[in-house]
Amino acid sequence: MTTRTPATEPAPAPAASPSLDDVTGWWSTAVSRIRPGEILLRGYPVQQLIGQVSFAEQIWLMLRGDLPTAAQGRLLEAALVAAVDHGPQAPSIAAARMAATCGTGLNNAVATGVNLLGDVHGGAGQQCMEVLARLEEAVADGAGPDEAATHLVREYRAARRHIPGFGHRFHPRDPRRDPLLTLVGQAAADGDTPGGALRAGLALERALAAGRPRPVPMNIDGATAIVYRELGFPPELGRGLFVLSRSVGILAHAWEEKAAGARIKGPLPRPLLPGYEGAAPRDLPPGERR
Amino acid sequence: MTTRTPATEPAPAPAASPSLDDVTGWWSTAVSRIRPGEILLRGYPVQQLIGQVSFAEQIWLMLRGDLPTAAQGRLLEAALVAAVDHGPQAPSIAAARMAATCGTGLNNAVATGVNLLGDVHGGAGQQCMEVLARLEEAVADGAGPDEAATHLVREYRAARRHIPGFGHRFHPRDPRRDPLLTLVGQAAADGDTPGGALRAGLALERALAAGRPRPVPMNIDGATAIVYRELGFPPELGRGLFVLSRSVGILAHAWEEKAAGARIKGPLPRPLLPGYEGAAPRDLPPGERR
Amino acid sequence: MTTRTPATEPAPAPAASPSLDDVTGWWSTAVSRIRPGEILLRGYPVQQLIGQVSFAEQIWLMLRGDLPTAAQGRLLEAALVAAVDHGPQAPSIAAARMAATCGTGLNNAVATGVNLLGDVHGGAGQQCMEVLARLEEAVADGAGPDEAATHLVREYRAARRHIPGFGHRFHPRDPRRDPLLTLVGQAAADGDTPGGALRAGLALERALAAGRPRPVPMNIDGATAIVYRELGFPPELGRGLFVLSRSVGILAHAWEEKAAGARIKGPLPRPLLPGYEGAAPRDLPPGERR
Amino acid sequence: MTTRTPATEPAPAPAASPSLDDVTGWWSTAVSRIRPGEILLRGYPVQQLIGQVSFAEQIWLMLRGDLPTAAQGRLLEAALVAAVDHGPQAPSIAAARMAATCGTGLNNAVATGVNLLGDVHGGAGQQCMEVLARLEEAVADGAGPDEAATHLVREYRAARRHIPGFGHRFHPRDPRRDPLLTLVGQAAADGDTPGGALRAGLALERALAAGRPRPVPMNIDGATAIVYRELGFPPELGRGLFVLSRSVGILAHAWEEKAAGARIKGPLPRPLLPGYEGAAPRDLPPGERR
Repeated sequence: MTTRTPATEPAPAPAASPSLDDVTGWWSTAVSRIRPGEILLRGYPVQQLIGQVSFAEQIWLMLRGDLPTAAQGRLLEAALVAAVDHGPQAPSIAAARMAATCGTGLNNAVATGVNLLGDVHGGAGQQCMEVLARLEEAVADGAGPDEAATHLVREYRAARRHIPGFGHRFHPRDPRRDPLLTLVGQAAADGDTPGGALRAGLALERALAAGRPRPVPMNIDGATAIVYRELGFPPELGRGLFVLSRSVGILAHAWEEKAAGARIKGPLPRPLLPGYEGAAPRDLPPGERR
Repeated sequence: MTTRTPATEPAPAPAASPSLDDVTGWWSTAVSRIRPGEILLRGYPVQQLIGQVSFAEQIWLMLRGDLPTAAQGRLLEAALVAAVDHGPQAPSIAAARMAATCGTGLNNAVATGVNLLGDVHGGAGQQCMEVLARLEEAVADGAGPDEAATHLVREYRAARRHIPGFGHRFHPRDPRRDPLLTLVGQAAADGDTPGGALRAGLALERALAAGRPRPVPMNIDGATAIVYRELGFPPELGRGLFVLSRSVGILAHAWEEKAAGARIKGPLPRPLLPGYEGAAPRDLPPGERR
Repeated sequence: MTTRTPATEPAPAPAASPSLDDVTGWWSTAVSRIRPGEILLRGYPVQQLIGQVSFAEQIWLMLRGDLPTAAQGRLLEAALVAAVDHGPQAPSIAAARMAATCGTGLNNAVATGVNLLGDVHGGAGQQCMEVLARLEEAVADGAGPDEAATHLVREYRAARRHIPGFGHRFHPRDPRRDPLLTLVGQAAADGDTPGGALRAGLALERALAAGRPRPVPMNIDGATAIVYRELGFPPELGRGLFVLSRSVGILAHAWEEKAAGARIKGPLPRPLLPGYEGAAPRDLPPGERR
Repeated sequence: MTTRTPATEPAPAPAASPSLDDVTGWWSTAVSRIRPGEILLRGYPVQQLIGQVSFAEQIWLMLRGDLPTAAQGRLLEAALVAAVDHGPQAPSIAAARMAATCGTGLNNAVATGVNLLGDVHGGAGQQCMEVLARLEEAVADGAGPDEAATHLVREYRAARRHIPGFGHRFHPRDPRRDPLLTLVGQAAADGDTPGGALRAGLALERALAAGRPRPVPMNIDGATAIVYRELGFPPELGRGLFVLSRSVGILAHAWEEKAAGARIKGPLPRPLLPGYEGAAPRDLPPGERR
């Protein structure tokens, strides 16, 4: 046990007297091996993958280390297709559009948008996956799904916390919910996925609706969380996959703005000016400060 | 004509006295329409796209405004699959891996890597598309492809400039060249793509090899440039598509690092220290400066 | 109480039928008022500030809303001077240096480095400020500083957690500790700052050293945490101020790399290659996948 | 001469068989030397700088390698103070404010804003410095400043190009111009700076006004360009210094938004929706695509 704490500085030493092997080992990876004339991705030569696997299957391979089944690949593809865009009212899209008018590369505009997919804007799917994992665990321990869901909803309400992945302040019913749940329901029925996360998510939706005038249907974060858990992804990769998906919309919007040629686009059309609620105009106190 | 110049400030006004329509119009887009209960992507309801189009087709739809043919979709998919990763020796990958150890979200790590795909690291494909466009234009004006290519190579050599998309300081022959050229050759032979960019690229490769002991084969930037031009993408989107593709490898590497739990990973294992070639140790000149 | 949860989408509406005032109000700020011919910063016309206040005083004004006393300004200046750089072994510096070789603007290189100052790399000062705040509160409630510090150290050790701001895996004694503590000690003695955070920090240092063969002296995060709390900054701005300070070193390093003209600099000099610990080379399973 | 071209891949090898010295040399720097217990910044021990140099002087030292004179330090300080903010109508500020509502760290919000200070939004100062350098060179070659400026204005007008650093679409007269020019005029009169860039800038301002109903006064980019050239900074660092300055405003605005607690703030208050000018709603063509 130690109380020595990491400062804002580099990482610990591998050895007192490092060798060149320590140096190359410092950057070791299981993702790819690049040598002159060779590009192995998770063990497969890249030339065998090109033209043979879909982009979604390639994403799976790179993140998971092995190829998906055809059914898994299709389900992943559907979730990636679903979340590409939510228009310029999403700050990730708006920021990328503004970046594209400031004289940066298109890559910088995409990076700007992706940078905004933080815990609040991009993290709900990841958080919902963690909630589903808890429910699945409770069921594995013998609880009924509805019982476990009711218990969890009660706990969240007592703590005045929101359950991530349900309800939408914009859509009364998220149009992406039904097609995703249909696909994952079919996959589970066919035995292509375990089905536990789907059952947990539906139980949670029922528990949330109980005793309320209107249901609180799953949103895109909830529906993709079910898909990604059925496919066995860890929660953090839920956000990672959302990043890959939303990057498509971010790029499309940034490109539209760049192609239109706007320059230094702010949030308001002129001559509208932001409101001001600060100190009244005042003079610097007398006396030479310097 | 005017010499008034943009300063580092916001964009011009739409009207002297704006209305709410000017405000919503300021953020107008042709990419998507989001209303309560509705997500239209390029006119298509999102629920019709989920499960029906591949992720690569969705990318095409979002960037181009219409769906690709099946052949176009497959060719795009192959190019996206090809460029996902080049290992931690690529700074985009290394930077993302380091970011993942600093306590940021996975989205911030991906944004960090994407931010590095600038003119030099990510722009060669875009630049090669511009070169191909010049050659195609010369051919459209009546020149033979080899003649036009020889002329262009001579011009670049005279200016001591590199032709982007050819040669690789790492791979004697880029393993991604052949499978991509095979696929685009098949597509052109089948009439699925026009074939002009392919002919221009091959003529350029021949012209570059003429009179040299070793050929200078196309690299990934050149091969994908041919594919993207055959598919009709503007050059700037060449970089955009590379960003989408490389984001996959960036995410896979960032996730590997995050899952391994390293903290504040610098480029060198300790106790190795960066070299120093600066001023010798010295004392601050005497005299109270403040 | 509600269980409706935010999805990855925009923020709530101000009113059912917004007016232009709602639009300008949406972007309201107390930081500055910009009108044609006028730039008010926290109420002061910018032309009165130029040449009259130091850059550190300007930083204080912008973040706090009022000008500091001369003593406060000097103390802030010292802390900003202290943390500018820790060399390329810091990932924020290394990532910015790599970015500068990839054909991006210098601003993108700085942004890349700043993006890495996350919870782990840039957050220790902020976290230390929270710890100091707890101790100060305990003292305000009647506890002695040493008693409160000993209790807190015991609590952290029981939870096997590190106390942020103390110890350094690189420096046996951080050379920035002593000059910063001397300055803040003088300020407290002169009545320019309250002194409570300094007393809390020193008590914590003593409590950490008790019963150990070697002390665990404050590092830069701990020393600046004391300064920033003595000056009344909230913990989150501890990270913000570190960002402003470290940006200087990030810029200096990015510029050095850019001026030297390196292109696409990876972490290792060639021909060194990253190690590989992944799947052995393998062939794609037979069977047409597409 | 070679036609081998860089691909989007890492940098060239230092040697066929590298040693550990090549590895540490790969990361060599003249900016700082960090060893256990030692932090040298441009040769000075950090503990000597803390409390002795101002933040602006530290910035100079880090970027230039030596300490400024007191007069140089004050002039740099004035320019840094001048450019900190231009309100949320600047996209760099607006994007950072939006980022702060998305659940990212304050460092990520600052990085987001800085990332937008590209060629158009942050590059005008840098470009103006290049124009001033051309004029100074012409004067050094024997031309009169007004003659050279008139020639340059004619050339730009013929090419229908803007001269960066003059005019402002927002301010009829930028309030930051006069105090900065007063200070740099005093410095030049006192012999603290050479004066050539100031004379060039004023000649350019006169040439731009000649024959026009209204003058086209220097804006902040022009005024700081004069200051930075008088101080001997290379043009690219003009953008670098603007980044350091504007980071202060970006941080102040991001913090204001974060402290207010908004979540996922888009550009428009609801229920306002972005306009739509895309394809009419349509159905996916029949036929199974998958």
